Amino acid sequence: MRKVEPLRWNNGVLTLIDQRKLPHQEIFHDYSSVEGVHASIKDMVVRGAPLIGFTALFGMVIAAKNNANDLTGLKEAGEYLKTARPTAVNLAYEVDRALGICESEITEGRRDSLYQTLEKFSLDQMEKLYRDNLAMAKIAFRELTEKYGDKKLNLMTLCNTGFLACGPMGTALGVIEYAFEQGRVNHVYASETRPYLQGGRLTAYELTTSGIPHSVTVEGAFSYLMKKGLIDAIFIGADRIVENGDTANKVGSSTLAIVAKHYGIPFYTVAPTSTFDLSSKTGEEIEIELRPEEEVLEAMGERICPKESRALNPSFDVTDHQHLTGIICENGIIKDITPENVVKTVRG
Amino acid sequence: MRKVEPLRWNNGVLTLIDQRKLPHQEIFHDYSSVEGVHASIKDMVVRGAPLIGFTALFGMVIAAKNNANDLTGLKEAGEYLKTARPTAVNLAYEVDRALGICESEITEGRRDSLYQTLEKFSLDQMEKLYRDNLAMAKIAFRELTEKYGDKKLNLMTLCNTGFLACGPMGTALGVIEYAFEQGRVNHVYASETRPYLQGGRLTAYELTTSGIPHSVTVEGAFSYLMKKGLIDAIFIGADRIVENGDTANKVGSSTLAIVAKHYGIPFYTVAPTSTFDLSSKTGEEIEIELRPEEEVLEAMGERICPKESRALNPSFDVTDHQHLTGIICENGIIKDITPENVVKTVRG
Repeated sequence: MRKVEPLRWNNGVLTLIDQRKLPHQEIFHDYSSVEGVHASIKDMVVRGAPLIGFTALFGMVIAAKNNANDLTGLKEAGEYLKTARPTAVNLAYEVDRALGICESEITEGRRDSLYQTLEKFSLDQMEKLYRDNLAMAKIAFRELTEKYGDKKLNLMTLCNTGFLACGPMGTALGVIEYAFEQGRVNHVYASETRPYLQGGRLTAYELTTSGIPHSVTVEGAFSYLMKKGLIDAIFIGADRIVENGDTANKVGSSTLAIVAKHYGIPFYTVAPTSTFDLSSKTGEEIEIELRPEEEVLEAMGERICPKESRALNPSFDVTDHQHLTGIICENGIIKDITPENVVKTVRG
Repeated sequence: MRKVEPLRWNNGVLTLIDQRKLPHQEIFHDYSSVEGVHASIKDMVVRGAPLIGFTALFGMVIAAKNNANDLTGLKEAGEYLKTARPTAVNLAYEVDRALGICESEITEGRRDSLYQTLEKFSLDQMEKLYRDNLAMAKIAFRELTEKYGDKKLNLMTLCNTGFLACGPMGTALGVIEYAFEQGRVNHVYASETRPYLQGGRLTAYELTTSGIPHSVTVEGAFSYLMKKGLIDAIFIGADRIVENGDTANKVGSSTLAIVAKHYGIPFYTVAPTSTFDLSSKTGEEIEIELRPEEEVLEAMGERICPKESRALNPSFDVTDHQHLTGIICENGIIKDITPENVVKTVRG
C-alpha cells in the first residue's frame, strides 16, 4: 500500500531515504560500509529514535560481514558508530545489544554464522516494532469505535511519529494510517510543529504518500480548530512517559492537550513500553533540553528576527497526565491514569 | 527615546519606513504625490490598520495641496486611494472623513485653507491615538501595580501591536513599552505568530529599537513558558470586540488565553473604543477570514510541505470573554466582563 520505505535491507546493502531532502525530493542512498552508515546518522540522512536504532543495528551487521575476524574490530566499529550522534540514547543502546550478541557468539565459537545471526536479530527487531505498533493501532481503533461507532473521523496530530521516524510503522501516525486503511478517516490535521516543522515537512509527506486527505495548520490554530468542531480525536507520540503518566513530547504537546481538555476532545499518547521510564515518579523530574536559538530565529534557513533578538527554544514540554484521555502502549490502553495502572500495564 | 518613526509628516512630504524590509533593513521612502501614497499602501510598504489610516489621511492632504481646485478632483483622489487595499475598512473610513472635510470646507468657501485644515486634522488624529493609547498604557500599568507592586515583570505578547502598526504608540505593545519606561519590565516573550511571523519580525524589531530585553518563542511553547513560571502577565491587541467581550484577534490568541486561564496567568486585551462593535452580541457572529494556504505551506518564501498538501489558514480566532482577565480601552478597564459593563465603558 505504501510506496516509500525509509529503510530497506537487502543482501548486505542498507538503503535509506535521505530525510534532509524531504518532502521535495525522494533520494535513496545505499550503504555497505560502517563508515557510510556512520555518515548517514551523523549527517542526519536518517532521523527518529527507532530508525536511528535500526540503522545502527544494520551498521553492526555490515561490520560483522566486513570486519576482521575478531571481537576487537567489532567493538571498534560499534564505538565508532556511537560517535555519529553521541546524545542519541537509542543508538548506543542498539550498538550495545549487537555487541552483546557478537561477544557471546564469538566466545561460543560461532563466528562464521555471526553475520546471519546479527542480520536475523536486526530484522526481528523491526518485525517486533511493527507488531507492537500494529497492536497499538488496533487498541486505538477499538477505542475510537467505542466512542464514535463507524463515523468517519477528523483526526489531529503534532510532530512526526510515522514510518519516517519508526521504520516499519509509526506510533501516533501509525494509529491514523491504520484507521484510514479501515476506511474510518475523513481528514487529518497535521500541526506544522515549529520550529523544526516536522509536521509540515515529514508528517505531511507521509500522509501524502499514504494518500490520506490532510491539511497542515499552525500551532496557533489549536483553539480555532477545536472550537469549530473540526477535530474528533488527537493522537501524539512520546519521548518519555514517567510513572504517574506525565509525558514528555515535542514542544506544543502540552499546549495542545490543555486546549483539547478545555473543549472535551479525546487526546491520546501512543508509545511503546520502551518509552516508559518508571524510575521517575512525575514530570517534575524530566529535564527539558533547550535547543539552539537559531531554530526559532530562522525558518527554512532564512533569518526572521533582528540580529539582536534572542530566542527561547525548548525542545519538549511535559503534558500533565490529567490532560490525557488515555495512554496507549502495545500492552493496552491506560484510561484511569494512576502510577499503579501505569506500572501494571507496562510490566504486562 | 525611540529611534524609529514608521510615519513622519514634514512640510508636505510623507516619510514611511518600508515594513517589507524589516527587521533586516531600515529603509525610508518619501512621498509627495497621491500616486506614491497609493503605491505605498498597495505594495504594503505600510501595514497595520491605524497606520494605513494615517497614510490615507496624509494622502488626502497631499491631494488637497496638489490637486485642481475642485471637489471632483479630490473625490477622484480619494476613490483612487481606496482602491489601494479594497478590504482595509480603516482606509476607506479615513478617506471618507477627509472627503467630508473637503466638501464642507469648499462648500463654505474655504478652499484656500483646505490644505492646512486637512493637515491639522490628520496630525490631530495621530495625537488623539497617542493620547488614547497612552491612557490605556497607564490603566494597564495601574492594574499591574495593584497585582504585583513594584516587582519587575516578565510580560508576553502575540503578533504586532506596536508603533509599526499604530504610528505614534502601540496598544498591547504600547503597554509593555510604557511599563518598561517605568523600569518595571524584566523580560518580554514575543510569540513569533506563524504563519506571517509578525511577532518574530516586527515585534522583535520594535523591542530591539526600544532596547527591551526579549526572547522570541514559538506558539507551541505557550504551556512550557507558563508552567515554568516565566510569564507574569499577557497583553494582546484586538481586531474586533463584541458586546459580551468576546474578542477577535490574530490566530493563536484564543489558544494563548485558554492556556493562561489554565495556569492562572493574567491575560488582557488592549484596544481603543473604536475596536468595539456593539452591534454584535457574541463572538458567534464574527466570521473568520481564511487566508491563502500558501502562507502556511511556506515560510520565508520557501515551500515547506509536499506540493499535494493542503493547509487551513484562519487569520483570526475568537477569544471567549471568560478567558480574559480584563479588557482595557482608553475609557478604563473592564474586569467584570458583562454586556452591560462593556457598553457602559465604551460609551464613556
